[in-house]
Amino acid sequence: MSERGRFISLEGGEGAGKSTLLAGLHAHLLQQGVTLLQVREPGGTPLGEAIRSIVLDPAHSAISAESELLLMFASRAQLVRERIQPALEAGQWVLCDRYVDASYAYQGGGRGQPVERIAELERWACAGLKPDLTLLLDLPVSTGRARAAGRGAADRIEVEADVFFERVRNAYRERANAEPRRFRVIDASQPPEQVLETAIAATEHLFEASR
Amino acid sequence: MSERGRFISLEGGEGAGKSTLLAGLHAHLLQQGVTLLQVREPGGTPLGEAIRSIVLDPAHSAISAESELLLMFASRAQLVRERIQPALEAGQWVLCDRYVDASYAYQGGGRGQPVERIAELERWACAGLKPDLTLLLDLPVSTGRARAAGRGAADRIEVEADVFFERVRNAYRERANAEPRRFRVIDASQPPEQVLETAIAATEHLFEASR
Repeated sequence: MSERGRFISLEGGEGAGKSTLLAGLHAHLLQQGVTLLQVREPGGTPLGEAIRSIVLDPAHSAISAESELLLMFASRAQLVRERIQPALEAGQWVLCDRYVDASYAYQGGGRGQPVERIAELERWACAGLKPDLTLLLDLPVSTGRARAAGRGAADRIEVEADVFFERVRNAYRERANAEPRRFRVIDASQPPEQVLETAIAATEHLFEASR
Repeated sequence: MSERGRFISLEGGEGAGKSTLLAGLHAHLLQQGVTLLQVREPGGTPLGEAIRSIVLDPAHSAISAESELLLMFASRAQLVRERIQPALEAGQWVLCDRYVDASYAYQGGGRGQPVERIAELERWACAGLKPDLTLLLDLPVSTGRARAAGRGAADRIEVEADVFFERVRNAYRERANAEPRRFRVIDASQPPEQVLETAIAATEHLFEASR
């Protein structure tokens, strides 16, 4: 029986450099001999990808905050059971592009859904599964949006106003302050190589056999 | 300002004659001069219909019980806010083909999700909205399935075994026993005209101006 794998989630706002870091971190972990599953939220399963296509579609502009929260957790509940837990139990590491902290940030901070409501959903929908390490790419909202401006059409959440993303950023930072052992906040205004180096350093303790 | 409308939900298992009763009741209420909105669950909104197409698709056979519950409430939260509440406030009556009792029956009784979990979701996702009257078409499972057998391809929930639908039926009956003033249980083994007559009689008190 192999040792249980490690679970790393990556969080951050628009233009923070999440995709670049994911690629670099993925390559690094493979070099270390880790067997890796990389997934994204919402998505990562056939059900989750179907939910993703609904929830990010700008045509669904009228989605209520309550429905958005429920859809995010529907995707997450499936992802945990169908992919993340089996991978960890098989000794694989899991690198997840957003996880439950994103609901505290976007549906909580951004949309104003109560923290206790999100915590209660987390309790049963995520089957108690917490990341071993959460990397938060933190960046002033204006910097992130300027970086992201050159990309394609914005999705249903990306079209929100700056004040929405300020609340998202603040909620992320509050999560990090509340759980400093799990979180590593990375200054995402640094050059990508520096961001990757900091992230790699943060993963080092995960290689110790007994935690 | 017109008087608030009335909210009627219709519940029942496979082959209970729900569609036939809905058509008859709809026609009767229109004859009474009621302005009527008829909706169905899951569905009834663009978001809800998108969720319906996912949740009833036999290809999504691996959907976890938790995800199914969350999807049903995501559809319901949207339906309540986007259509049912505005209609009731405008003085329209609402006839809903399944509502929250269906989650207690199918996701609770059928799939084993805890009652407290469903009650907590109901509390905030449904914004406290309860039907004024719930008609439960009750029928032995074997009778209902025999009636339904002649129809087209079964959806993801209809393919479940008899034992699943026995649990669904029992959960519906428990709901009715717990709230006898809201529920009217109708013996669905009667001829359709008899079922309709009973349903119409059950709606009569809704026409009284002050309840």
